[in-house]
Amino acid sequence: MTTPDFDEIIDRRGTHSAKWDGMEAYYGVSPDDGLPMWVADMDFRPPACVTRALQDYIDHGVFGYFGDDAAYRASIGWWMQERHGWQIDTGAVFSTHGLVNGTGLCLQAFTEPGDGVVLFTPVYHAFARVIRAAGRKVVECPLALTEGRYEMDFAAYDAQMTGNEKLLILCSPHNPGGRVWSAEELRALADFAIRHDLVVVSDEIHSDLILPGARHVPMAVACPDISDRLVMMTATTKTFNLAGAHVGNVIIHDPDLRRRFETVMTANGISPNSFALHAATAAYSPEGAAWVEALCNYLDGNRKLFDEGINAIPGVTSMKLEGTYLAWVDFSGTGMEATEVQRRIEKDARIAVNYGESFGLGGETYQRFNLATPRARVAEAVERMQKAFADLQ
Amino acid sequence: MTTPDFDEIIDRRGTHSAKWDGMEAYYGVSPDDGLPMWVADMDFRPPACVTRALQDYIDHGVFGYFGDDAAYRASIGWWMQERHGWQIDTGAVFSTHGLVNGTGLCLQAFTEPGDGVVLFTPVYHAFARVIRAAGRKVVECPLALTEGRYEMDFAAYDAQMTGNEKLLILCSPHNPGGRVWSAEELRALADFAIRHDLVVVSDEIHSDLILPGARHVPMAVACPDISDRLVMMTATTKTFNLAGAHVGNVIIHDPDLRRRFETVMTANGISPNSFALHAATAAYSPEGAAWVEALCNYLDGNRKLFDEGINAIPGVTSMKLEGTYLAWVDFSGTGMEATEVQRRIEKDARIAVNYGESFGLGGETYQRFNLATPRARVAEAVERMQKAFADLQ
Repeated sequence: MTTPDFDEIIDRRGTHSAKWDGMEAYYGVSPDDGLPMWVADMDFRPPACVTRALQDYIDHGVFGYFGDDAAYRASIGWWMQERHGWQIDTGAVFSTHGLVNGTGLCLQAFTEPGDGVVLFTPVYHAFARVIRAAGRKVVECPLALTEGRYEMDFAAYDAQMTGNEKLLILCSPHNPGGRVWSAEELRALADFAIRHDLVVVSDEIHSDLILPGARHVPMAVACPDISDRLVMMTATTKTFNLAGAHVGNVIIHDPDLRRRFETVMTANGISPNSFALHAATAAYSPEGAAWVEALCNYLDGNRKLFDEGINAIPGVTSMKLEGTYLAWVDFSGTGMEATEVQRRIEKDARIAVNYGESFGLGGETYQRFNLATPRARVAEAVERMQKAFADLQ
Repeated sequence: MTTPDFDEIIDRRGTHSAKWDGMEAYYGVSPDDGLPMWVADMDFRPPACVTRALQDYIDHGVFGYFGDDAAYRASIGWWMQERHGWQIDTGAVFSTHGLVNGTGLCLQAFTEPGDGVVLFTPVYHAFARVIRAAGRKVVECPLALTEGRYEMDFAAYDAQMTGNEKLLILCSPHNPGGRVWSAEELRALADFAIRHDLVVVSDEIHSDLILPGARHVPMAVACPDISDRLVMMTATTKTFNLAGAHVGNVIIHDPDLRRRFETVMTANGISPNSFALHAATAAYSPEGAAWVEALCNYLDGNRKLFDEGINAIPGVTSMKLEGTYLAWVDFSGTGMEATEVQRRIEKDARIAVNYGESFGLGGETYQRFNLATPRARVAEAVERMQKAFADLQ
């Protein structure tokens, strides 16, 4: 493998990038001097094996219906075994148009309108949006903050349950906050799901983005006994920066759950696009794995630089990430309103971030910063933030 | 524009082509000496402007979330006005993962489980599959055969309606059979929809593939008065052979229908992939239009060659297409069972076709042949068919 150069600055302006070309409309921050640290994609190219596969496909040049997905399925099976010690039945993989789509299909397959869906907040904002649009009820179970990191508090959640809840969505690793849940925590969650008879949808889209020192355990490996209520979701899109390709793996080993999900797939006319499948097949490979190792080391360097600089601002604390590239920064110690924090970030530092409040209960005093960009930009962001909050020194 | 060379033989074997690489598994016909005339994609490259746009995207090399779809929407607006005399509100376009997905979303948005959905059969087989998986009822209204072409018989359909029907799916032009519905026929259909209070989903995916002598009229242009019950569906995928890209336009001008559809889009987490949007934006252009003109002339040549050769077989009649590249061949005059016809086509002629029975009532004695392939292959198919049915001479 060619050593990836994550320091390379690639100009994404004018390329229909949501993160860059959508920033001005959302935040009033120009991409010409602003730093987009919101939308969760990376400013890096994917590994060369992915680009090569796409190039070969363009060179062939006929873009009809995709068929014969044996190699695609085999690559998923290889990756899960090799990287996560998880042996899957490759026939149990559904290819959806990404995992927000996967989430929507799970709600249709496993819940009815009016049912409660449990989220551990603050959590990825799209979950609540999809649940509400589907006419289901969001049940927010707030994460507890213990020694600066998120933990689940099942005694509190037990008291919250009403019997109307039918499904829970686990974000593993957790976005935001970057918790990589331990096998013990996953066990406690599985027991909670059994107690309240909940289907568990484990969204493990960040499971390849694990920073040095942490280890991800797939829910299916931690708790094989809940296979009859478990839906696993993984994807190449976050790992390899293929968000535009919109493809995800929904892996269901239980025959009854699988049958219900398959009906919903058919009712929705879901079949993945060929560009995504060519890219994903190439990504789940030894070359892809080596690239991910290099990536995680680079991201860890960004995280350290960012945390050191941000934590130097009085009253501001960046949660120590175990996984993901999404820094989660608490401004509560500044005593400022969120609107004032956001004003300074956008007007003074000229940075676009995701507002903490959009992640649900517990996110109100936070802002989320995307660190998956060349290090020089992270350094620039830190400098601007220190300046924008210099009066606190 | 470079003149497209539709005669070029491009080897699609081993490229994950459903049509080529899936043939042996479905039909026992090897792609090495068989002719795949089933799956409705073409054995041609798209126009050079599309390939260039995809190449530029690969060269840029960062495949994050797509944003800023103004150019994409403008290209759709331009195409509909320029090619179909239809002025659209580009803000009324939803981008779905193709039109089977679009159909599924319409059923969720505009019907309830148990509702009847009207189809004019024989018709594209995916409609019934999606309707049934969604727990709605397929209401088959058989097309009448008048002087060798399909017509709608609303007096008969009026008698069939029970009041439980909530939506109808029009296939315009019609697949199979290639009818390009006239303004008068569309008017009669609109009146039928008004009489029975049905939402009209007009699937116009073949509307750019019109053979010389026919003229397509969009339902929205023919009957603007039913805008409050009309959903229009169009796509670049059939026109430009981008089926693998899985993208479609669902265009809804009525604010109430649009709001309901938008909720379902959100509940399903639907957002189109970036490869498809880059390709589609380039396709809906003057260069794309010139390519389509050349394509339709070429397809017409294929049609003539095919019809002449097939109609020379006693008892076999190919319906005269006005649009689409999907020949619809009636074998009833041979007196043979469909299984014998299929056996001869597969075992003797080594051709894969779509079975007429899969298109619903009225399709039982037919087989569908895809003619979108270099002419030499069409000639070869005709020769093989004549040999396979030589005993009828």
